[in-house]
Amino acid sequence: MSNANWRIGVAGLGTVGSGLIDLVTARPRFSPTGDTCVVSGVSARSRGARRSVDMSGLAWFDNPVDLARSPETDVFVELIGGAEGPAREAVEAALRLGKPVVTANKALIAAHGQELAALAEAQGTPLLFEAAVMGGTPAVKMLREAMVGDEVEAVAGILNGTCNYILTQMEASGRSFAEVLAEAQALGYAEADPTMDVGGFDAGHKITILAALAFGCAPTLVAAEIEGVDTIELLDIRLAKDLGYRIKLVASAVRTGSGISVRVHPALTPLDHPLARVDGVLNALFIHGRKIGRIFIQGAGAGAGPTAAAVAADIADVMAGARRPVFQAPAGSLKAFTPVSAADAIGRAYVRLLVRDEPGVIASISEVLAEAGVSIDSFLQKPVEGAGGVPIVLTTHVAPEATIARAVAAMAALPVLLTPPRVIRIAGV
Amino acid sequence: MSNANWRIGVAGLGTVGSGLIDLVTARPRFSPTGDTCVVSGVSARSRGARRSVDMSGLAWFDNPVDLARSPETDVFVELIGGAEGPAREAVEAALRLGKPVVTANKALIAAHGQELAALAEAQGTPLLFEAAVMGGTPAVKMLREAMVGDEVEAVAGILNGTCNYILTQMEASGRSFAEVLAEAQALGYAEADPTMDVGGFDAGHKITILAALAFGCAPTLVAAEIEGVDTIELLDIRLAKDLGYRIKLVASAVRTGSGISVRVHPALTPLDHPLARVDGVLNALFIHGRKIGRIFIQGAGAGAGPTAAAVAADIADVMAGARRPVFQAPAGSLKAFTPVSAADAIGRAYVRLLVRDEPGVIASISEVLAEAGVSIDSFLQKPVEGAGGVPIVLTTHVAPEATIARAVAAMAALPVLLTPPRVIRIAGV
Repeated sequence: MSNANWRIGVAGLGTVGSGLIDLVTARPRFSPTGDTCVVSGVSARSRGARRSVDMSGLAWFDNPVDLARSPETDVFVELIGGAEGPAREAVEAALRLGKPVVTANKALIAAHGQELAALAEAQGTPLLFEAAVMGGTPAVKMLREAMVGDEVEAVAGILNGTCNYILTQMEASGRSFAEVLAEAQALGYAEADPTMDVGGFDAGHKITILAALAFGCAPTLVAAEIEGVDTIELLDIRLAKDLGYRIKLVASAVRTGSGISVRVHPALTPLDHPLARVDGVLNALFIHGRKIGRIFIQGAGAGAGPTAAAVAADIADVMAGARRPVFQAPAGSLKAFTPVSAADAIGRAYVRLLVRDEPGVIASISEVLAEAGVSIDSFLQKPVEGAGGVPIVLTTHVAPEATIARAVAAMAALPVLLTPPRVIRIAGV
Repeated sequence: MSNANWRIGVAGLGTVGSGLIDLVTARPRFSPTGDTCVVSGVSARSRGARRSVDMSGLAWFDNPVDLARSPETDVFVELIGGAEGPAREAVEAALRLGKPVVTANKALIAAHGQELAALAEAQGTPLLFEAAVMGGTPAVKMLREAMVGDEVEAVAGILNGTCNYILTQMEASGRSFAEVLAEAQALGYAEADPTMDVGGFDAGHKITILAALAFGCAPTLVAAEIEGVDTIELLDIRLAKDLGYRIKLVASAVRTGSGISVRVHPALTPLDHPLARVDGVLNALFIHGRKIGRIFIQGAGAGAGPTAAAVAADIADVMAGARRPVFQAPAGSLKAFTPVSAADAIGRAYVRLLVRDEPGVIASISEVLAEAGVSIDSFLQKPVEGAGGVPIVLTTHVAPEATIARAVAAMAALPVLLTPPRVIRIAGV
C-alpha cells in the first residue's frame, strides 16, 4: 500500500476540536494504513480566544466555508454545531467539491441528513458522523456496518449524559431537578441554556440518526415524539424506586407492523435492567436484530477525548476509502418514516396521584380504571413527608396508550385530586 | 454507484454455513451498496449429509481448495475450522489468487494470522474474520476500526459461551461440573470432545486475535497463559458467592510497562461487576482506551443466526472495498508479543483450603501468609456439608503473583491440609 498525507481542515475549536488537533499532532500516523495526517487549517468564531492547543503554524480562516474550499483541505472536519448557518454551508461546500466530510453535528445530520447524503453520494465522497452519537462509543459504525447481515427490529438506550447525570444525582443526593441542574451547569456537564439536553432534543437528534441507520429511513427529526426530564420530580424518583424501578431518559426507535416509532421520554426501567444501571454521564444502547438478538453497548457519550477519538476513527475510515452509502441505503432510496399510528401504540404506565386523605379514594380510582378497561399491576399508597397530600401510585398492565390516557383524564376529574396526575411510561425494552 | 454481483463460495456446511446460505438466498441485496450476492458453490466433508438448506443449483466441490480456486468464486468463505489442513490450504489458495476471504476460523487466525495477513496485503485483498470472535457481536470491527484514534490499554471479557453456560448452571442448579457438562452436551451447547471449550483454548484463540487487533502485535497463541473451567468445583462457586463474587472464565489482554499479558483463567468477579452479570451463553467484552475510557459490549457469542450475520457483514465490507491492513498495522510491521515477565505480574487471589477441624489451624495459616508478606483482605471459615473437612477461604490484597504462589506452596506443606490449596485469581478489571 502506498502512503499518502492527508490535510485536515478543522472548523470549530471547542474542546473536541482542540482534542482532535492534539491527537493528530501527537500521532500523525494513527491510521493503520500508515497514511499520515496533518491539520492544515482551522476556523472558529473568535480568533483571539484562549485555547489549550498551539495554533501557530495552522492557517486561519474566518469563514469555515473558505476552509472547506481551500485547496489545502483534503478532508473537512465540522465541529461547529447547529443544523443551519455556517456548519451547514461549510459541509455543503466541501461535499460539492467532492471532499470527504467528518462531523460531530447531530442537529445537522438529523435535520438535513438525506439531502447531504445525496450530495455526498453524487460526488462519491464519504460523509461520516460517528461522533454525533454516543461520543467515543461506535454506535453509528455498528448500525451502519455490523448489522447489515441482519434486520434491526429496535434500538433503545440512554443517549444524553447530562440528563442521566441529573437523574443519577437526584436519586443519590435527594435534591430537586433545579438544584442538580445548577450543579451540573457549574461542573460544565450542562449548558447555560440547558433546553437542548434536558428538553430531550439532543437525544431526539441522536435517536433520529440511529433510526435512519437501523431502518433505512430518511432522518426526520419531526418524526420523533420528544419529552425531556425537566418535569421529573424527586417524589417520582423515590416512589418508582419503591416499586423496583429507576427513572431514565430512554430514546427508542422500534419497528412495528404499522410503522416506526421514534421517541424520547422518561421511562421507568426495572432496577435489574442494564439501562437502569447506567450511571452518571455514561451512554448505553440496545440494538435488537432478528438474527443477532440483543447487543448491548455502553461507554462515554461525550467528552473531548472520546469524541476526538471518534472523529479520528472517521478520518481513518476516509483514508481506508470504503464505498458505502451514508445511511443504510443510498440516499435516493431511503424510505419516508411511517410513524406508528397513535391508535396502535401500547405500553405500560406509572400513574402518580396526589389526593386528599379521606375515605373512598382508592375505591373511586379503581372504579375509573375498571370502567376504562385498564388493569392494574401494582398499587402503592405511601405517606411522604412534605408531599402536600397522600401520594398514590399505580402501575398498569400493557394497554393501548390511548386507553390509559382516557383513564388518566377521568382520574384527573376526580374531586379528591390535589394536582394533575403524573404519568410516566414503563420501559418496554 | 454501479452495482455488481458477487459470487460466494462457501466451504463448510454446518449450522453457520447453512445459516449463511439461507441469509443470502432470502436477501441477496443485503449490502447497503445495492450490490447483489449469490452463493455459487459449496464444499463440505460429506456430500450426502442431511442439511436444512436446499443445495440444488449449487456447484459442489469435494475439495475446498478447488472451490477457492474456481473462476466462479469471487469471495471465499471458510467455515471449515481448524488451524491446519483443508481450511488453511483453501484460505491460502484463495488469497494467492487475490480473492477476498471471510472466515469464522479463530484457530486459523490465532495460529497463522500474520502470515495470512501478509499474503492478503501483498495481493491487496481483504481477509476478514468478524465471526471468529463473539459471533454476531462486532468486537473485531470495533478494535480494528473504531479504536484507531485511541490507544487500547486492555481488553477483557467472557468469550466462551459454553464455559459461561456451565458456570451459570452450576451456580443456579447446585450441580457439579460433570453433570452440567453432560447436560450442555445433550443440549448441543458443548461438543462431544469439550476440551477446546472447557479447557479455555477457544477463549485463548479469541483473546489472541483481539490482542493482535488491540496492540498491533502478531497473533501468537503460545503467548497466552490458558486455564479452563474444568477444575472449578461447586464448593468454590458457593464460597465465592458468600464473599460477594461470581466465578467467570475471563480472557484478558493487558498492556503494561514491561509487555503484554494475554491470559484465560477462571476469575472471581464482584457480583455488581457487569461481567458477573453475563449469564448463560452470552459473551461480553470491555475495551479500555486511554482517551475513550471503558466501552462495554455484550451479545450472542455463537449460534447459526448471529454468526451467519457476522459473516454477511464481512461480505458487505468486502463489497465496500476498504483498503485496510488485516490487523492494527500492516503484517510486516506487527510487533512480536513481549509477554509481561512473571516477576512483574501482580494481582489478588482467592485461596481455598480444606483442613482438619482442630485448634490452631487459623494461626498457622496466618503465620505462613505473614512470613511470605501477603496481606489478607477477607477470611471465611464455614462448615459445608459433605465438603469432607472444614473449608477455609481467604482473599488477598494485591501482591506479586510469585509471592502469593510461594505463600500457597508453604500452606500446602501444612500437615492440617486435607487437599492441595485451590487458588483462583480475583479479576483486576
